[in-house]
Amino acid sequence: MTTYQLPPICILGLGLIGGSLMRDLTISNERVFGYTMHGARAAQRDGFDVSDNMEEVLRRAEADNALIVVAVPMAAVASVLDQVASFAPTCDITDVVSVKERVYDLIVERDMQGRYVGGHPMAGTEFSGWSASHEGLFEGAAWAVTYDYAREGLADDHWAALFTTVCRLASVVGAEAVPVRVSLHDESVARVSHLPHVIAEALSLVGDRGGTLAQSLSAGSFRGATRVASTEPELVRNMCETNADSLVPVLDEFIELLQAARASLADDPASMKQLAESGNRAYLRMAARKGARRESVSPVKISSRPVMRVHPGAPGWVRQLEQVESLGGRVEVF
Amino acid sequence: MTTYQLPPICILGLGLIGGSLMRDLTISNERVFGYTMHGARAAQRDGFDVSDNMEEVLRRAEADNALIVVAVPMAAVASVLDQVASFAPTCDITDVVSVKERVYDLIVERDMQGRYVGGHPMAGTEFSGWSASHEGLFEGAAWAVTYDYAREGLADDHWAALFTTVCRLASVVGAEAVPVRVSLHDESVARVSHLPHVIAEALSLVGDRGGTLAQSLSAGSFRGATRVASTEPELVRNMCETNADSLVPVLDEFIELLQAARASLADDPASMKQLAESGNRAYLRMAARKGARRESVSPVKISSRPVMRVHPGAPGWVRQLEQVESLGGRVEVF
Repeated sequence: MTTYQLPPICILGLGLIGGSLMRDLTISNERVFGYTMHGARAAQRDGFDVSDNMEEVLRRAEADNALIVVAVPMAAVASVLDQVASFAPTCDITDVVSVKERVYDLIVERDMQGRYVGGHPMAGTEFSGWSASHEGLFEGAAWAVTYDYAREGLADDHWAALFTTVCRLASVVGAEAVPVRVSLHDESVARVSHLPHVIAEALSLVGDRGGTLAQSLSAGSFRGATRVASTEPELVRNMCETNADSLVPVLDEFIELLQAARASLADDPASMKQLAESGNRAYLRMAARKGARRESVSPVKISSRPVMRVHPGAPGWVRQLEQVESLGGRVEVF
Repeated sequence: MTTYQLPPICILGLGLIGGSLMRDLTISNERVFGYTMHGARAAQRDGFDVSDNMEEVLRRAEADNALIVVAVPMAAVASVLDQVASFAPTCDITDVVSVKERVYDLIVERDMQGRYVGGHPMAGTEFSGWSASHEGLFEGAAWAVTYDYAREGLADDHWAALFTTVCRLASVVGAEAVPVRVSLHDESVARVSHLPHVIAEALSLVGDRGGTLAQSLSAGSFRGATRVASTEPELVRNMCETNADSLVPVLDEFIELLQAARASLADDPASMKQLAESGNRAYLRMAARKGARRESVSPVKISSRPVMRVHPGAPGWVRQLEQVESLGGRVEVF
């Protein structure tokens, strides 16, 4: 008899993230089916249980008591949630959308908080769509799991069990569940994901203006900072525009640092002392926190994230999540 | 009897670049010796012909009619050239310094143009010093080779032969000689190397302000754009400050793009259409020019730089170099 670690999983949207999730759940012998607007044929040909009929898929999710994973772009989330309300009115819901505050607003508008735990796997490549999806995408990645509902003291046993399931979902595909409230999530990803995307686009333009010669002379530093500019513009817009409230102040911080550097480089004598030294110190602090040990000879991949074992619903568990959040740590649920 | 492709090579300064050059020349059975202020003992222990006595090394270069490679930081170039003038007054000179205009000014001040061809291998890592040097660093890298003296119509047979030697030096260590005049070099590297360093420092600061949580959620885009912030601040300052004249206008271009994106992201509705689409187009243009073919199944590494075979000193050779330069191409000398 097969034992499953998870309830049936119904994925709505089978692009890079949704598709890779379906592949990983399949090789872990979990029950998984899904809906996709584009690429259903390709996914079926690859042997997956996929339909392009949203209503049918949602009715099946309701009948199977499946966990619904919303994996569509932000712009489509509202309409998907409306259909979930119509055709799968009792299913639990999670998502993998790159911003969490806007999704949560839509959840609250529909009074779905009691059956929703937000998620965001910090994984991706510069490619998109089902054809780009692949096994192992989430290995070692952080998987942000939101817990605002519990922080507000509203979580009942059902919600605690759902939180457990979402953490397990991350774990089954090799990711690490990092608890985080929606507002902190959005500010953090503005800093470490959306700003780098803005930078990649702008740097590509500046490099391109240098023509073939400049590209011929470019090396690792340029490649590293521009790689994600190959991402579909629609996807970049989606991430950055939907998180504009958090991204604009972060962009202001960045521009201010560049302007200060510009001023001191234009001085006589030119200086970049301040930025070079403080930037390097910041880098070293981050590396120390990450505990990236080049000299490690252990063949076992050790996570650099501190771990806390948490029993969702047990006394004090929300305070535990707050502690883990402040450390950027991961939870293991039991 | 051993045949050498190159004259004896005397490297002054054995950090990452100078040290790696010494290692590669050694495994290619070329004659190479050098001077270094730091790490001479370590290099000797590793079996290399290294001294910390500059005068001695230069007198030997003069006796051996060696090609001198100046591989010290920009700040030390003037004093090194003065010592070359004193102790190796007839030796030919090249260099591997990351800016070319300032070096050329010092060369002209000392009336050394007739025996100088500038160079700059576009290779490096975030590490520095002899201990970071290693074989193979230059494999496939562009090696900028300057030719202003020839553009001014001043090149005699001696200079043409020196140009040939410097291109061969690049080739012996696996690099590709890309001809470029000093001013274009400095503008190009400001775009594709020095600006990415400035960005890496500033982005590290913005990421660090997000604390452990932000780092825990960071992934490839952040890592790619901050990696070079681990470079010694002194080296970053050296590159950026000595190229400030070219870097400041490039930084202005970049800041202007960010400010426009900031404004349209702060609009209602937030938009990043312009930057996302133009940045992606720029990226795709660059990728097309580079001809990076993911689908290639050939085991032979094919350079993406167009090649032109040039016989330095032959009629029309300078025009050929100008053509190659405009394409970011490489020259093969014969």
